Amino acid sequence: MVFSASQIALLINGNVDGNPEAAVQSFGKIEEAGEGQLSFLANPKYEEYLYSTKATIVIVNDSLELKQAVTATLIKVKDAYSAFATLLGKYQEFRQQQLKGIQQPVFIAATASYADDIYLGAFAYVGEQVKIGNGSKIYPGVYLGDNVTIGNNVTLHPGVKVLHSCQIGNNVTVHAGTVIGSDGFGFAPQADGSFSKVPQIGNVIVEDDVEIGANSTIDRATIGSTIIRKGAKLDNLIQIAHNVEIGNSTVVAAQAGISGSTKIGKGVMIGGQAGIVGHLQIGDGAKINAQSGVSKNLEPGKAVTGSPAHEYTSALRSQALSRKLPDLERRIKELEQLILQLKPTIE
Amino acid sequence: MVFSASQIALLINGNVDGNPEAAVQSFGKIEEAGEGQLSFLANPKYEEYLYSTKATIVIVNDSLELKQAVTATLIKVKDAYSAFATLLGKYQEFRQQQLKGIQQPVFIAATASYADDIYLGAFAYVGEQVKIGNGSKIYPGVYLGDNVTIGNNVTLHPGVKVLHSCQIGNNVTVHAGTVIGSDGFGFAPQADGSFSKVPQIGNVIVEDDVEIGANSTIDRATIGSTIIRKGAKLDNLIQIAHNVEIGNSTVVAAQAGISGSTKIGKGVMIGGQAGIVGHLQIGDGAKINAQSGVSKNLEPGKAVTGSPAHEYTSALRSQALSRKLPDLERRIKELEQLILQLKPTIE
Amino acid sequence: MVFSASQIALLINGNVDGNPEAAVQSFGKIEEAGEGQLSFLANPKYEEYLYSTKATIVIVNDSLELKQAVTATLIKVKDAYSAFATLLGKYQEFRQQQLKGIQQPVFIAATASYADDIYLGAFAYVGEQVKIGNGSKIYPGVYLGDNVTIGNNVTLHPGVKVLHSCQIGNNVTVHAGTVIGSDGFGFAPQADGSFSKVPQIGNVIVEDDVEIGANSTIDRATIGSTIIRKGAKLDNLIQIAHNVEIGNSTVVAAQAGISGSTKIGKGVMIGGQAGIVGHLQIGDGAKINAQSGVSKNLEPGKAVTGSPAHEYTSALRSQALSRKLPDLERRIKELEQLILQLKPTIE
Repeated sequence: MVFSASQIALLINGNVDGNPEAAVQSFGKIEEAGEGQLSFLANPKYEEYLYSTKATIVIVNDSLELKQAVTATLIKVKDAYSAFATLLGKYQEFRQQQLKGIQQPVFIAATASYADDIYLGAFAYVGEQVKIGNGSKIYPGVYLGDNVTIGNNVTLHPGVKVLHSCQIGNNVTVHAGTVIGSDGFGFAPQADGSFSKVPQIGNVIVEDDVEIGANSTIDRATIGSTIIRKGAKLDNLIQIAHNVEIGNSTVVAAQAGISGSTKIGKGVMIGGQAGIVGHLQIGDGAKINAQSGVSKNLEPGKAVTGSPAHEYTSALRSQALSRKLPDLERRIKELEQLILQLKPTIE
Repeated sequence: MVFSASQIALLINGNVDGNPEAAVQSFGKIEEAGEGQLSFLANPKYEEYLYSTKATIVIVNDSLELKQAVTATLIKVKDAYSAFATLLGKYQEFRQQQLKGIQQPVFIAATASYADDIYLGAFAYVGEQVKIGNGSKIYPGVYLGDNVTIGNNVTLHPGVKVLHSCQIGNNVTVHAGTVIGSDGFGFAPQADGSFSKVPQIGNVIVEDDVEIGANSTIDRATIGSTIIRKGAKLDNLIQIAHNVEIGNSTVVAAQAGISGSTKIGKGVMIGGQAGIVGHLQIGDGAKINAQSGVSKNLEPGKAVTGSPAHEYTSALRSQALSRKLPDLERRIKELEQLILQLKPTIE
Repeated sequence: MVFSASQIALLINGNVDGNPEAAVQSFGKIEEAGEGQLSFLANPKYEEYLYSTKATIVIVNDSLELKQAVTATLIKVKDAYSAFATLLGKYQEFRQQQLKGIQQPVFIAATASYADDIYLGAFAYVGEQVKIGNGSKIYPGVYLGDNVTIGNNVTLHPGVKVLHSCQIGNNVTVHAGTVIGSDGFGFAPQADGSFSKVPQIGNVIVEDDVEIGANSTIDRATIGSTIIRKGAKLDNLIQIAHNVEIGNSTVVAAQAGISGSTKIGKGVMIGGQAGIVGHLQIGDGAKINAQSGVSKNLEPGKAVTGSPAHEYTSALRSQALSRKLPDLERRIKELEQLILQLKPTIE
């Protein structure tokens, strides 16, 4: 797709300064962009690159006063950064909208139903009683088990697996390779040391506006539902165990893991590689630092770090002091020697 | 599938108290269940819900004495919890047994062989010389490389990959997206700083009654076999490196990782996100806490925590004290001041 | 494939001592090998096994002096270990070279192009404008999005997903289930507590001679490229965030995670389950221990451990002392009591 400076100016409500026919077909950072690329300048720190950039078009702030000649065509807007972001969004949307129709081969069970305008990629599997809403994009190799429901405007990237009876809301995006609805890890120890499986017959409910990264795993509930609530954002390689609930607009960074039946509140921030043990309550707005190990309930707004995790500020102090331990030990040794010298006076 | 109260009573050896024709088609927790659902009451703490539940049928203990009227049909058994679990197991079994036959399209190499009663989902790939035993369920998109052996009653969920020459025993379940038989991570450093690959030509052997979670990875041995022994249970997103052995009925929680050539004994418990370095021996019945980093051999029955991991009880004491470090430092400072005051007496 | 002792001797420039027609078809460790298997003896510690092994052929050092009779046919070479490794390499190469042609069904977009000698497994998806170089092996179920470029002699194992516009160099191997080019995790917080997605329109560039393990995830850049440079080796279940760069011949062990925009130098060693926060510079040759949490830039050659990570040697001392904390506390208590006894002398 090729766009001209005048077309872009129209999309972002800007004014062209240079050649209105200048054409671009991709995006680049101002310091790296080449011919045929569109870039932007928002941070004055990078202004020097404007005079040497090879980008064909650059979006700049209205307020910018040029100090040298530029070869690129400029598009002037009120806020260059947000205009650029808007443009990227429109571009992605446009790319997505082109995806339509059913590629071959696919497997669609007789009782499945789906809107007319969906995209269903080759090698996708659609089980019995599956329902797929308007405008959803099901990429190649996706698996939808029996009785799965997919809302409107959902994007399931290649190789996503949604297992039987799970429900996906509207405007949900799931990245490649993620598994939704694998069995919870439930085994009852037997007298002989072996384990007997506890059947996992619940499901997973993913509410509207959720985004889930690549190769993550979300286990179905033993009974009832594992729930990812509206607007939550999960990164790659995350483990969500059975019967967990993740609150509205909570953000979970890559490789974090949440154990069974733990309930996470709204607007919680969970750092990368953090772990949370089972059956806890994490209050709204809590902040859990990367690599923390949370083993107790957290009150709303509480910030913690460390493994085991403790209140952020005091944990940082303890961490700092633990690096001073060699010094503390030396001071104790000195005190012991001084005391030894003093001791005779009390005998 | 719809079941009546009298059918269910027959399956779990119970007595119907209410309408024997009452019919259910799914399961729910007593506090959440709706019409057409089956629930149970085992814990007296939840008895209040029995009087308000919308469940159509509830399984209860024989010993229960009703304090109010109930609208649900009751099925009375000796132990409501285990009767419910039995029922779930039978239901899952029944669901599974319905899966049979070969969907299209699939890829089956000319030299592959398989029992008559297997399920082979669409887009499954069955390589040369592969053997699949009785009653096994191979879900859509599963990949079985050349010379793979799959035992009886094995379930491989969607997108599982078993690479060439690996062997899966009987009654094994592997959840979606897991990779069995990827190359071990072996590279020989060269004089110029680059690395040359050490060929990985062993395989993976998964013995009977093993269950492995979703999106886990089990590398093939360099030479010989990586072995997951009978009855071991592995969770999601677990890394098992080349030449590792996991003992009978050992349990490994999500996101744990075990480095090359380490041998884990029987009945070991490994917590989530724990890591174990290579070439270690972990004794039978050892317990490794979540997020621990084990860098030394462990004797049988030993419990450890922390990174690096140490004996559980003493590690907990050290962890507790490390949070008291600011207090310890203050006490040292006070002692130093007191000593300063005393010092003149010895001069 | 069956090979005779004389054929093998020819390949590794050795001399046969025994039956030149002795034939093998697989490999085994000397203590485990059975009939029809080839083994080797390099470490004198294992010499006893040479006299009891059931292997049909054993590669040994020229310098070995037999102490008993052996039943196996021997092949004598200068360095048994490296001869065996050479043989494994040739065997793997040979196995790989046999893979050729296009299995059915596959999906190949009209505008895709590929060399004549590639292998394309069943259920592979090849998008618009995709290019695949000479001798590359694309296993079953691989997904190549639009505009993806794959170099020469690349091996993509089953279920690998390379998303649109990503570029893979020559001699690259990617193991099963890995995702290259998933969206970076970028969301702008909104006034109402929700998040709005920042479009991720960059790509991933994987340079020559890179190997990436199974079920790892490498996110595309927001703008520009996430880059894995020449000769880097990544293990399983690794997370590489958007705009990260991994330097030449850097090695990353399993389950490590690297946050957005961090640049890792050349020849860096990153241990398993380590985490590195975003926007850092890690100097050439740095060593990051397993489970470390790196939150600051590292100078070239620096070695660190711990979470948060600190200089290796001093961190080990602090860790050792933190296990002596109960002892330090006892010593402080004793000092306090002694001081109390002394105190009267200054009143």
